[in-house]
Amino acid sequence: MTIKVLGYAAQSASQALAPFQFERRSLRNNDIVIEILYCGVCHSDLHQARNDWGGSAYPMVPGHEIVGKVIGIGPNTTRFKVGDHVGVGCMVDSCRDCQACKKGLEQYCEKFPTYTYNGVDRHDHTVTQGGYSEKIIVSEDFVVKIPDSLDLKAAAPLLCAGITTWSPLRHWKVGKGSKVAVTGLGGLGHMAIKFAKALGAEVTLFTRSLGKSEDAKKLGADRIILSTDRKQMESVRGEFELIIDTVPSAHDLNPYLPTLGLDGNLVLVGLLGPIEPFLHTVPLLLGRRSVTGSAIGGIAETQEMLDFCGKHGIVSDIEEIKIQEINAAYERMLKSDVKYRFVIDIASLRSEAV
Amino acid sequence: MTIKVLGYAAQSASQALAPFQFERRSLRNNDIVIEILYCGVCHSDLHQARNDWGGSAYPMVPGHEIVGKVIGIGPNTTRFKVGDHVGVGCMVDSCRDCQACKKGLEQYCEKFPTYTYNGVDRHDHTVTQGGYSEKIIVSEDFVVKIPDSLDLKAAAPLLCAGITTWSPLRHWKVGKGSKVAVTGLGGLGHMAIKFAKALGAEVTLFTRSLGKSEDAKKLGADRIILSTDRKQMESVRGEFELIIDTVPSAHDLNPYLPTLGLDGNLVLVGLLGPIEPFLHTVPLLLGRRSVTGSAIGGIAETQEMLDFCGKHGIVSDIEEIKIQEINAAYERMLKSDVKYRFVIDIASLRSEAV
Repeated sequence: MTIKVLGYAAQSASQALAPFQFERRSLRNNDIVIEILYCGVCHSDLHQARNDWGGSAYPMVPGHEIVGKVIGIGPNTTRFKVGDHVGVGCMVDSCRDCQACKKGLEQYCEKFPTYTYNGVDRHDHTVTQGGYSEKIIVSEDFVVKIPDSLDLKAAAPLLCAGITTWSPLRHWKVGKGSKVAVTGLGGLGHMAIKFAKALGAEVTLFTRSLGKSEDAKKLGADRIILSTDRKQMESVRGEFELIIDTVPSAHDLNPYLPTLGLDGNLVLVGLLGPIEPFLHTVPLLLGRRSVTGSAIGGIAETQEMLDFCGKHGIVSDIEEIKIQEINAAYERMLKSDVKYRFVIDIASLRSEAV
Repeated sequence: MTIKVLGYAAQSASQALAPFQFERRSLRNNDIVIEILYCGVCHSDLHQARNDWGGSAYPMVPGHEIVGKVIGIGPNTTRFKVGDHVGVGCMVDSCRDCQACKKGLEQYCEKFPTYTYNGVDRHDHTVTQGGYSEKIIVSEDFVVKIPDSLDLKAAAPLLCAGITTWSPLRHWKVGKGSKVAVTGLGGLGHMAIKFAKALGAEVTLFTRSLGKSEDAKKLGADRIILSTDRKQMESVRGEFELIIDTVPSAHDLNPYLPTLGLDGNLVLVGLLGPIEPFLHTVPLLLGRRSVTGSAIGGIAETQEMLDFCGKHGIVSDIEEIKIQEINAAYERMLKSDVKYRFVIDIASLRSEAV
């Protein structure tokens, strides 16, 4: 028996998001029913709602930074009980059989993971709908537990902005004494600073505007480097083992490469598109430096991150909004006018329900 | 007391190489005097002789794939004796004190290694001159031993083309069962195939002309993929852990990236310049793939490679020339008309000596 839920959807690439009623699937044996409490607003929500990357299906209910409460469980589930606080991130399924899935790296599933919205369900082939809605039904294998100590609304962005920066920090083994730089101070960048610092690294923020210095220091940055100042850039030549580049738009990577040390990695986590202007190879060859990328993180890794956050009291810095403010919030996001993530209080949606 | 030697030098960026007499430095305590027997002809000799990269100093005696015989040793040397067959590659010195040097990665010396020619000596500040000459004097720390089992002239290209491909294969831990692809079949590419095969990998050559298939198979390639054929490229999607890209000119890397598996690396060893056309980030993010670079190799690693070659009977496929043929050889190199490396018989130079 399907359930009716209210959400906010884009009806086309050019229309504002508006109330939309739709059906969630009948409970499968392995499923969890979640009453959504909060949903973070990711930059990619806006891109997908507006079909900036192509391939958008409408109506589309965005949202993949979901925090809620378990209100139902399928007969074959084992990990959650009614009342638990749980999270759902960018994926709700994967092939579960390829080398990547077997390693717990479902985000790199060779047959592609099923994304939380604008994806296609692997069983009934319906289009998935996201967290700007009252409820969601997800296989328990793609549900994570939110530690009790965390503020639920501020935990929501951990499900995408958090794991996206956590995963490369862990993969490239950042720890005590590591020297890490972060490019861009937005939803992802501010989490990268918090995590790198909590993992024991010395953290530098590259920014184009020194106005962000005080904020960055409060978040944990040890040093701010103005990337437009050649002298400052020269002063950190060969310094970093890892740069987490969170900038979502095309930008020149060439000034950053020489700031990596031998075998250093510049990891792109925000940019989907061409690397413009051309990347020059000399810093790659003369230092075995890499330009690489990383996408969200696996489910086990997401739980590991949440547990770490629970232990260290780490959440996102957020601005809470009502669902009715989502279109205005998108406009502000386009101007980077948010510190550092909008989170929708889904109670505001319920007040609209008939 | 300096020694007079005859060589072949470029007198300017636009002049053909011609006989040139110059002085080698007096023997330092740590030095070895080498009578040069053979010198390989690297593509970079041509680029530097013609100032294609800027920064060329004239007169310039190129050559950094040097094989010869020890004819003199400084009082503080310990590793060589008169009569030993030895090699000198791209470097003759480095700072010896930075993190890279201490790790035996002199090629990544933070203060830059002293290159064998068109470099500046760290002690007397003279410009270094390379192997298209009768003799060379080098600190024993930058001299390697040529195993007795190797043909001396065919061993010469190991000092640059060999180590440049050996180093990334070893750094990225290629071994039995590894799946490696090689792009470009020239001096570097043919060595990459031989080494990858000898290390136990399954080796694929990417080429734009199937005319090279037979040759590539003889060198050890298990499979040839026509990189211009979309179907063939699709058939190796996600296949390789490492691509050694030896192509020295700008080329589109985008078709190759999806052929890397999760965490795969595309290593540039031949291209110095911009990556044109623009590199797209999606394959980097959705597979944590890297584009990276590697430069020659360290001295200890060069000796390791030579010992491996001695054990496995690996040398370069060469075409022997007289020094008087060098300018014609450059023209043929520009057309990739050599299988796969020219090597100068330095005896031909001695016949010119007065």
